[in-house]
Amino acid sequence: MSLDHPRLKPHERLAEMLAEDMARVGRTIRERMASEHAPRIPEVTAHLVEAGGKRIRPLLTLACARLCGYSGEDHIRLAATVEFIHTATLLHDDVVDESRRRRGRPTANLLWDNKSSVLVGDYLFARSFQLMVETGSLRVLDILSDAAATIAEGEVLQLTAAQNLATDEATYLKVVRGKTAALFAAAAEVGGVIAGAPDPVVRALHAYGDALGIAFQMTDDLLDYGGTSGVIGKDVGDDFRERKLTLPVIRAVAAADREERAFWTRTIETGRQEAGDLDRALEILARHGALESTRATALDWAAAARGALDGLPPHPIRETLADLADYVVERIS
Amino acid sequence: MSLDHPRLKPHERLAEMLAEDMARVGRTIRERMASEHAPRIPEVTAHLVEAGGKRIRPLLTLACARLCGYSGEDHIRLAATVEFIHTATLLHDDVVDESRRRRGRPTANLLWDNKSSVLVGDYLFARSFQLMVETGSLRVLDILSDAAATIAEGEVLQLTAAQNLATDEATYLKVVRGKTAALFAAAAEVGGVIAGAPDPVVRALHAYGDALGIAFQMTDDLLDYGGTSGVIGKDVGDDFRERKLTLPVIRAVAAADREERAFWTRTIETGRQEAGDLDRALEILARHGALESTRATALDWAAAARGALDGLPPHPIRETLADLADYVVERIS
Repeated sequence: MSLDHPRLKPHERLAEMLAEDMARVGRTIRERMASEHAPRIPEVTAHLVEAGGKRIRPLLTLACARLCGYSGEDHIRLAATVEFIHTATLLHDDVVDESRRRRGRPTANLLWDNKSSVLVGDYLFARSFQLMVETGSLRVLDILSDAAATIAEGEVLQLTAAQNLATDEATYLKVVRGKTAALFAAAAEVGGVIAGAPDPVVRALHAYGDALGIAFQMTDDLLDYGGTSGVIGKDVGDDFRERKLTLPVIRAVAAADREERAFWTRTIETGRQEAGDLDRALEILARHGALESTRATALDWAAAARGALDGLPPHPIRETLADLADYVVERIS
Repeated sequence: MSLDHPRLKPHERLAEMLAEDMARVGRTIRERMASEHAPRIPEVTAHLVEAGGKRIRPLLTLACARLCGYSGEDHIRLAATVEFIHTATLLHDDVVDESRRRRGRPTANLLWDNKSSVLVGDYLFARSFQLMVETGSLRVLDILSDAAATIAEGEVLQLTAAQNLATDEATYLKVVRGKTAALFAAAAEVGGVIAGAPDPVVRALHAYGDALGIAFQMTDDLLDYGGTSGVIGKDVGDDFRERKLTLPVIRAVAAADREERAFWTRTIETGRQEAGDLDRALEILARHGALESTRATALDWAAAARGALDGLPPHPIRETLADLADYVVERIS
């Protein structure tokens, strides 16, 4: 950990190291979310973009480009591209999940309507596509179009796997790659590609982003059941209520006795949930150590992310990216 | 009109002239709508794609490539690309409009759910993007990414312009370009670009597709009020019920007296529609000749489409494209 910012989290250190580039990304996002004809577009986009968030995806692109010695302009466009893709998927996710809150604010589908969220999401996808075309790099376009397909496929898979107790860990991993890791991996990879980094470096950045994304999403899924700290936050249980098969439940189902299996069938498959069911679910998860084992797997992925950076030359950004891998599992929100 | 197929409509003649290519486009669509992990994707896509439709967009791409002497493979990918973009927008449109029927069948949002329509639409957008990246043509990518942004912007504009009696003809034209003409224009243009046609030819193909799309959409909007034939079909009045400001109503509002204006304010702005209102709307439209004048404007755009082809060398496909411009206004469904 760098000694000059002992209290900053790794992504905050990245944001500080890349502050000037991040300001330019912010300007590009504001310019490109404008619409001469349809003011609803910047309204909806600004609601989400200005609510903040950690901005990990654009930071990954900027950091990897810088790490590979890039000195051009296209990393700004690509960082804005990945943030637009992310924002578009959030808008559509909130429609699909019928969410009411995101980043501490009411969701766009609640403030405006589902229609606006669907169409503004489409607009941001199209804008992200225009931005990446401007880089003129077919390799970048190839990486990001593949990521976009993996994201959408993972979302559909999650939709059809939800409520199905037969969902296994391999399916869960595909969903996680779609939801999170595909864009993390692409964000890191295109930073290297645009810098003209050699293939082994590009592959290492992809592997880093993929493992980081998986560790990040597994931790999200763990935190949704309160994590392993024993402190249960107020937003616990969304996945349970939405009947999503995440890793803790998949592992508890695999170890379930007959009576526990009946509980999961009733609450997740048929959705007949009653008062007290979430507490009962937490009890069963604890009995099988499902939260601890999920955390152990997330830590393995964090170690894989850190390990992927081993072959890269020493650089303050490399160390911070490695710290970020530990942080995404340690965080409590 | 070609003498050997006197009874075929122009797009059917195109489909016959380009039958082999269209069969390859069909195979590419079936291959690319597959998803190893999420069978919901090909189910939803097939429901829409196999319901038919005129396939005007992929025909435009194939026809323009052939007209410009193209002999490669990329026109197949591009034709599949535009059909995927079109299918994705239909899936999202049906969610936005809460439609229940499309091409004579229940909509995907009704058969499955809105979630599947949103996410499968996203998947098809991503797949279309992968297909066009495979052509390796940055110019094609530029044209199609601009079209995608125009489509989404037009949809948002339509959403915010609906129910607003102040919507003018300029706004209507932007909506129509977004809904229909942008993809028609891009579909035609990329056919020329992939063939390496000179710039004036590419511009002519773009102008043709743009004018054809406007004539097509204006006629759709006219048919939604029964057209000018005096024969009222069973699907009349959807736009009125959805309170969409289309050209016939915009013109009737512009010419309205005080009592008519109150009628439009009640039915379109506040949405308090009663039995008999559609008949009353048709009466008012007839009184101001709004349907005839919309048809006259659509015919002007059809003439513009035909005229855009004037500078191109004579070719059976050129003649059929010209006939298609007349047909889109003459058709009764």
